[in-house]
Amino acid sequence: MTAVIQRPLTMARTIIASCVSDGTQVIDATAGNGHDTLFLARLVGDRGRVFSFDIQQEAIQQTRQRLEAENILNRVNLIQQGHEQMHLFVQEPVAAVMFNLGYLPRGDHFVVTRPESTVGALEASLKILCRGGIITVVLYTGHLGGREEHDAVLSFCQKLNQKDYTVLSYKIINQINDPPALLVIESL
Amino acid sequence: MTAVIQRPLTMARTIIASCVSDGTQVIDATAGNGHDTLFLARLVGDRGRVFSFDIQQEAIQQTRQRLEAENILNRVNLIQQGHEQMHLFVQEPVAAVMFNLGYLPRGDHFVVTRPESTVGALEASLKILCRGGIITVVLYTGHLGGREEHDAVLSFCQKLNQKDYTVLSYKIINQINDPPALLVIESL
Repeated sequence: MTAVIQRPLTMARTIIASCVSDGTQVIDATAGNGHDTLFLARLVGDRGRVFSFDIQQEAIQQTRQRLEAENILNRVNLIQQGHEQMHLFVQEPVAAVMFNLGYLPRGDHFVVTRPESTVGALEASLKILCRGGIITVVLYTGHLGGREEHDAVLSFCQKLNQKDYTVLSYKIINQINDPPALLVIESL
Repeated sequence: MTAVIQRPLTMARTIIASCVSDGTQVIDATAGNGHDTLFLARLVGDRGRVFSFDIQQEAIQQTRQRLEAENILNRVNLIQQGHEQMHLFVQEPVAAVMFNLGYLPRGDHFVVTRPESTVGALEASLKILCRGGIITVVLYTGHLGGREEHDAVLSFCQKLNQKDYTVLSYKIINQINDPPALLVIESL
């Protein structure tokens, strides 16, 4: 039997898929190993565009390889810059921005996203997000600094004016081992 | 444009509709003004059954009238008893149980659901819930005792063994005026 309650990572993709259509412009704010960039590149099609950010060369390389293997690298701009600079590289409007925070799987665990740059990247995202657009943020608290980042992001989101945005908190609450939480920001 | 993020009350119904099919047996643990009982009666069809509980006669009467107006009272057992007794009135298994806590709209605001009986009703629900079954709980914190009830229910749910249940917390976090929160329990 298929579970009714989706995991936060799955729910993030379900929500993104419901609002990103062929030909739109979107952002993967944390390329990482490239899974979300590939997911987005499939959604936007040949007429769309994905801007994919990561500060680590290793992440950019992994993402490039993944896209080349699927023959859709042409739909993606890979940008090795801090994501808090995204508004300098992308013209508005974008329909969606995906964040998957924490560290690069199998990468250097001392290179993690930080509260200041993450909140800065959320601010940059809001500048270029279209009305009706969606930002998903998957947050981990198990690693060093994870709880601090979680709290900073939550605090930022709780202050967003309800006339302009709806913010959803979505999390599984009876699991050990610090499962990820999902925040979703919808521009009204 | 339709909003992507559903409100907790809407999300509760979306989840229930995805797992309750024609011919199944379900429970409305808080009949109130009868909206959820009617929703469930439509879902289960003529071969299904809804057991609808409320301690207040006024709520039972309102629910009866709503069902009669739709000509589907025959699908529902209306039971004027505390919902913590539900396992004495319903043979397992049930596919879903809906809770909408707080007080009866336009009723006596001093008659509210209480932490002890609400947790008791959740325990009773788990006794008769089938595998793959769903319990939805909409919680309000704005009324007297609401925060206390919210905390008691949350504490109970957080302790459910993750091997047997998944518990989702779903809430809008940037709104003033104490919007309702949704908890969803899925039996694995």
